[in-house]
Amino acid sequence: MNHPTASERLEAISQKPVYRNLYSALITDLYQLTMMYGYYKSGKMNQRAVFDLFYRKNPFENGFGIAAGLEQAVVYLTGLRFQDDEIEYLRSLRLFDEGFLDELRKFRFTGTVYAVEEGTVVFPHIPLMRFAGRIFELQLVESACLSFLNHQTLIATKAARIFQATRGDLFDHDHQSIEFGLRRAQNIDAATFGARAAYIGGFVGTSNVYAGQNFGIPVVGTQAHSWIQSFPSELEAFRAYAATYPDRTTLLVDTYDTLKSGVPNAIQAARELREKGHELLAIRLDSGDLAWLSKEARRMLDQAGFPNVKILASGDLNEYVVRDLILQGSKIDQWAFGTALITGDTSPALGAVYKLAAEEENGVMIPKIKISENPEKVTNPGYKKVVRLYLEDGKATADLIMLDEEQIDPTHPLTLFHPVHTYKRKTIHNYTMEELLVPVLEKGKIVYSLPDLEQIRERMMQQLTAIPREIKRPINPHAYHVDLSQKLWDLKQKLLLEIR
Amino acid sequence: MNHPTASERLEAISQKPVYRNLYSALITDLYQLTMMYGYYKSGKMNQRAVFDLFYRKNPFENGFGIAAGLEQAVVYLTGLRFQDDEIEYLRSLRLFDEGFLDELRKFRFTGTVYAVEEGTVVFPHIPLMRFAGRIFELQLVESACLSFLNHQTLIATKAARIFQATRGDLFDHDHQSIEFGLRRAQNIDAATFGARAAYIGGFVGTSNVYAGQNFGIPVVGTQAHSWIQSFPSELEAFRAYAATYPDRTTLLVDTYDTLKSGVPNAIQAARELREKGHELLAIRLDSGDLAWLSKEARRMLDQAGFPNVKILASGDLNEYVVRDLILQGSKIDQWAFGTALITGDTSPALGAVYKLAAEEENGVMIPKIKISENPEKVTNPGYKKVVRLYLEDGKATADLIMLDEEQIDPTHPLTLFHPVHTYKRKTIHNYTMEELLVPVLEKGKIVYSLPDLEQIRERMMQQLTAIPREIKRPINPHAYHVDLSQKLWDLKQKLLLEIR
Repeated sequence: MNHPTASERLEAISQKPVYRNLYSALITDLYQLTMMYGYYKSGKMNQRAVFDLFYRKNPFENGFGIAAGLEQAVVYLTGLRFQDDEIEYLRSLRLFDEGFLDELRKFRFTGTVYAVEEGTVVFPHIPLMRFAGRIFELQLVESACLSFLNHQTLIATKAARIFQATRGDLFDHDHQSIEFGLRRAQNIDAATFGARAAYIGGFVGTSNVYAGQNFGIPVVGTQAHSWIQSFPSELEAFRAYAATYPDRTTLLVDTYDTLKSGVPNAIQAARELREKGHELLAIRLDSGDLAWLSKEARRMLDQAGFPNVKILASGDLNEYVVRDLILQGSKIDQWAFGTALITGDTSPALGAVYKLAAEEENGVMIPKIKISENPEKVTNPGYKKVVRLYLEDGKATADLIMLDEEQIDPTHPLTLFHPVHTYKRKTIHNYTMEELLVPVLEKGKIVYSLPDLEQIRERMMQQLTAIPREIKRPINPHAYHVDLSQKLWDLKQKLLLEIR
Repeated sequence: MNHPTASERLEAISQKPVYRNLYSALITDLYQLTMMYGYYKSGKMNQRAVFDLFYRKNPFENGFGIAAGLEQAVVYLTGLRFQDDEIEYLRSLRLFDEGFLDELRKFRFTGTVYAVEEGTVVFPHIPLMRFAGRIFELQLVESACLSFLNHQTLIATKAARIFQATRGDLFDHDHQSIEFGLRRAQNIDAATFGARAAYIGGFVGTSNVYAGQNFGIPVVGTQAHSWIQSFPSELEAFRAYAATYPDRTTLLVDTYDTLKSGVPNAIQAARELREKGHELLAIRLDSGDLAWLSKEARRMLDQAGFPNVKILASGDLNEYVVRDLILQGSKIDQWAFGTALITGDTSPALGAVYKLAAEEENGVMIPKIKISENPEKVTNPGYKKVVRLYLEDGKATADLIMLDEEQIDPTHPLTLFHPVHTYKRKTIHNYTMEELLVPVLEKGKIVYSLPDLEQIRERMMQQLTAIPREIKRPINPHAYHVDLSQKLWDLKQKLLLEIR
């Protein structure tokens, strides 16, 4: 089989049920359309511009983010068309003339997009996507692209926090995390793309069958309390399930009384399975004190001759509870996360923005800046790239945002400085570089071969390894350096002074 | 035109773009399918059961919830089919035999569903939906129905809190709230059904054009900072927008300096519009201190002869900030909410559950109970209904959960008691009753004429009016009484004793 081209790969991905018919061109804010109409009426619709999509603060007070959502954005951008019913609706608003509606009917996204690959460790102010093209087109796509990246990056980051808290840098066990959040997600896209993002962030499976079908994520599941209740006794319920899946049975043991009834009955079911040549896979704890119950259950299973039966835990878990349960010696092999993972819990939005960085005036690209009373909110102007700098130990030491035309000669030392407190400086030697923004669309045509989910997850693992431990601490992490090149910093100061 | 039947109405709604092709039968947790397979293998697939969908705690520490999401659930339940690619995927899991896959191919939802109407004020423990039918079917639909109801009820409740905080019981102004959350939502369904839920909860418009098309919600929007930046000066940007929409212009005034530049330029643009016979509609504040800026802007606009130009405010608003801004005398006419509304902010999940309440044994329906160490988590057994009791002043005083076969004679006094602290009792006289659960599907057939969104919103307004003020306090509200009938309470105690 030949290696598929970038375009064949995109074509195949766009046919997935989750992407089929999903993207109405009306998934945008009204002001994008009224501004497009304004550009059209002002003779500015073909004016070229550059927009950056970035966030300003890591979610969960984490030290890093995990980029996710690019595949969804690419499917959307390349498939974007106005259908007849959409034009009809827009006409009914009485905001647009027929000439403009004709422009929409012809609309194709022809912009050039560079992006950080999914699974990459990212930080505030780094463009996750950089758009160049007609302002008319770039304005339309803002809202949907923000929603995709905001959502998936948020959940991938939460998942990576959990991954870190259960193994990663803190523990060396083979703890595994699985995603059970469908019922608590903010509707179906949130559940399905959330399951995808969780897998990118280091999870090993999902209960969501639709996510399994669409993204090839391993699907997992046991039985509910209703199964246990629907049989005359717990033991009969266990037997019936074990008869259905003799080699794949996990038994939910907390319906009546975990240690007095659930675990003894599970051991009885395990014995009966063994007599028939099968082994019980696991038990699942879903309530009560998981540290104590898991230790008792482990002891009972071991004594009964079932040291290989695993213990799965669920029930309003998050990264803090799990870390403490591990520290308290709980005997849990696999953790299931629902609400806290799939909603982002305390930080349910990433807050990424999409800001004008340059615009054509009389045929020349002019860098643009957005000022604010809050220095953190002043944007970085111009057509930029991002270089990640690695030291000899293979660890990333800083990211440098610079103008696209700038070059770094890695045979020379490089001095970095804090973009606000400029007296904070460091000079690095013997470094290597990685450009984080890669070409994805060139004039609307796909030039990037979308990786499969396993590759994205693999990239996340490699990237996490290359980040210093102190950045990965779940609470109060050290701040990673994201600096500006001297040239970009000078440009920014010049534009700020011009405006003032 | 004839009044459409319930079935014609459902047919028309199911054709909306947002519902078209949306609902894969695989939108479920794997354990639903493995349990279905277990029921099939155990000869129990046709056994009849009853499940209740309810939540245990109001979100946001609010005193009530607003039911929403039923329309989405009805479209899903009535359209549920397994497609060939879905059967193929399930076959690939090697968990199911061909006989079972044939059963799925024939699958239709034939259950009977009663539900609380959308827009109804609801409380913990009240069934929002009650399902009766084959356990085989009821198990499949749990996950998706929970996701729909959990999400939309959460956002409608948040919106109603904001509605209450900006007018409702606290203030008598004509404050209006609009929804701007698409870019911060947890993906597209969350944005679109969230916009719908916000409208149910009392909002007057959305920026989400797709939500506008699908649900007929008024769409609103102005321009972004990028519009202002893309012109040589702020005034030229204002003029260009005003020329595009002379009778519908709102101007964003905070790009450079709200009071030194934005408002004076807006006044200049308003003068030029007036010379041509038009009036500027509004200005929009998006940063800075909204109390101070709005008062200054109001004063400047009034002095310049533009007392009818409205002031719109946006920028990380929530119900607490808005209430305080109003109390501090801010001069804001319309409020736009993004992140805090569309994600639920501090409470991003409702946590509703779906619990077995009864199951057939030897042809007889047997009430079922789920016990827990936590008394709040013990379920209410049996096939139940809910009656809301109103006193002579038209205010709701309590909800009574009772067995479906029970009757109340409203010509007699009724004594209510707390379901846990049973010494807390009250007797009511001269009350009227409303049954909250209405028939929606009878054996899979639609028997409920789905209301349009305006009707649902109207119901929300009426319902809020009928709830005592102390229940509606945004912080530390009084707890509304949700009691059990004596008969249901007795049944619950009996089943609890039997299990223990």
